[in-house]
Amino acid sequence: MISKSQISLIRSLQQKKFRKEHRLFVAEGLKTVSEFINSGYSVKTVYHTPSASANLNKLPYNTDLEPITAAELEKMSGLTTPQEVLAVISIPAPRTLNNTDLQKKFTLVLDGVQDPGNLGTIIRTADWFGIQNIICSEDTVDAYNPKVVQATMGSLARTNIHYTDLAELLPKLGMPVFGALLNGENIYKTDFGNEGLILMGNEGNGIRPDIQALVDRAITIPRIGQAESLNVAIATALFCSEICGKKVQ
Amino acid sequence: MISKSQISLIRSLQQKKFRKEHRLFVAEGLKTVSEFINSGYSVKTVYHTPSASANLNKLPYNTDLEPITAAELEKMSGLTTPQEVLAVISIPAPRTLNNTDLQKKFTLVLDGVQDPGNLGTIIRTADWFGIQNIICSEDTVDAYNPKVVQATMGSLARTNIHYTDLAELLPKLGMPVFGALLNGENIYKTDFGNEGLILMGNEGNGIRPDIQALVDRAITIPRIGQAESLNVAIATALFCSEICGKKVQ
Repeated sequence: MISKSQISLIRSLQQKKFRKEHRLFVAEGLKTVSEFINSGYSVKTVYHTPSASANLNKLPYNTDLEPITAAELEKMSGLTTPQEVLAVISIPAPRTLNNTDLQKKFTLVLDGVQDPGNLGTIIRTADWFGIQNIICSEDTVDAYNPKVVQATMGSLARTNIHYTDLAELLPKLGMPVFGALLNGENIYKTDFGNEGLILMGNEGNGIRPDIQALVDRAITIPRIGQAESLNVAIATALFCSEICGKKVQ
Repeated sequence: MISKSQISLIRSLQQKKFRKEHRLFVAEGLKTVSEFINSGYSVKTVYHTPSASANLNKLPYNTDLEPITAAELEKMSGLTTPQEVLAVISIPAPRTLNNTDLQKKFTLVLDGVQDPGNLGTIIRTADWFGIQNIICSEDTVDAYNPKVVQATMGSLARTNIHYTDLAELLPKLGMPVFGALLNGENIYKTDFGNEGLILMGNEGNGIRPDIQALVDRAITIPRIGQAESLNVAIATALFCSEICGKKVQ
């Protein structure tokens, strides 16, 4: 049986401070949990309500399963409507990013994206378009924030997210930096070549001036109507589509 | 001074039932409120805290302003962090949609989109790409839901949203229906011509079978990576970009 202190530890993982301290995060829903198991994440325990039992044979036989009541799940869950299954998973150690990881492909770079729903949607979209690496400034919202985890719909399990000092890393990579900026080249007429970094900025303020200084080519999505701006996840998707989407035959 | 019953009426407009009963909705933040005033919406009263006073000269001189305290705003607001200004606005009477409104242009059609953030982002994106009309099935989330209003960032003021029975309306319009479906034509290789309806489905279930039967051409965004699906607002944006975005010189 699960103890009160275990429940409160799991509940505390809703906050970044405790995720950092315990190096653990929470994923909810059988499908999302399966994706992490299948991607080789170290899943500590899968808690499940009786109603989920019939579907647990979809998980590997050696998964550490622990039955809980719906009331216990409600205390542990960050969701308004908990989804029968909740896993506690180890946050993987950060990998060092080498130039060779990024060559001959496109990589997203996020400078200060704040909204968990936006980051989650960006990770899901990157996974759709085959982008494997996302480099985030240190103040970008934490990818293991439960709202991000849920919004990725499992794609977080397949995408490498790196947090780093962009001002330090970008010049070292020696890759062309395409920045989403106003008054740049028309995205529809740009030849992006076969590798590069796609740099997107914060929801309200865009790319910080010191990071803008590292942009090789400013790229703009032309506006036809009157909206003042596009949502950052939408703008990112349009870049992924233009750069990666069209290559499929 | 604002009365308790006025505060509770305004608070009740967070719910569709009361918006429908009073034919009123709420918009928050000076910028969003200005967009509704500038677009000719009938704005009943603009409530503002003392901190907002310095900026109210941006509103037309005949706006009905009413000072309130921060505590009163907090009771009326649907936002976690209220934004100094809250307006009560009349919901405009539904307009009849004629074929001539839609000719030589593209119109979005949403079949059962449920998430307010998704609808808000779709309206904002449509406004960016110059799409003026959005036709929604009757079970699509209400465009005057405060979460939708805020997510549109003012674009709701410039976009016509029509709620109707799609099964009845679509055949009458005599326009080509492009449906976002699996196993259709590659979006990047499709010639969309110069007019048509872009039909998007519900977040989990896609386009309903009886509405799918009205699709003239199934269109697919090719997948390169492994995500199972795209978020509906992202998919809608990719259609808008392919169909409308490229026409800009």
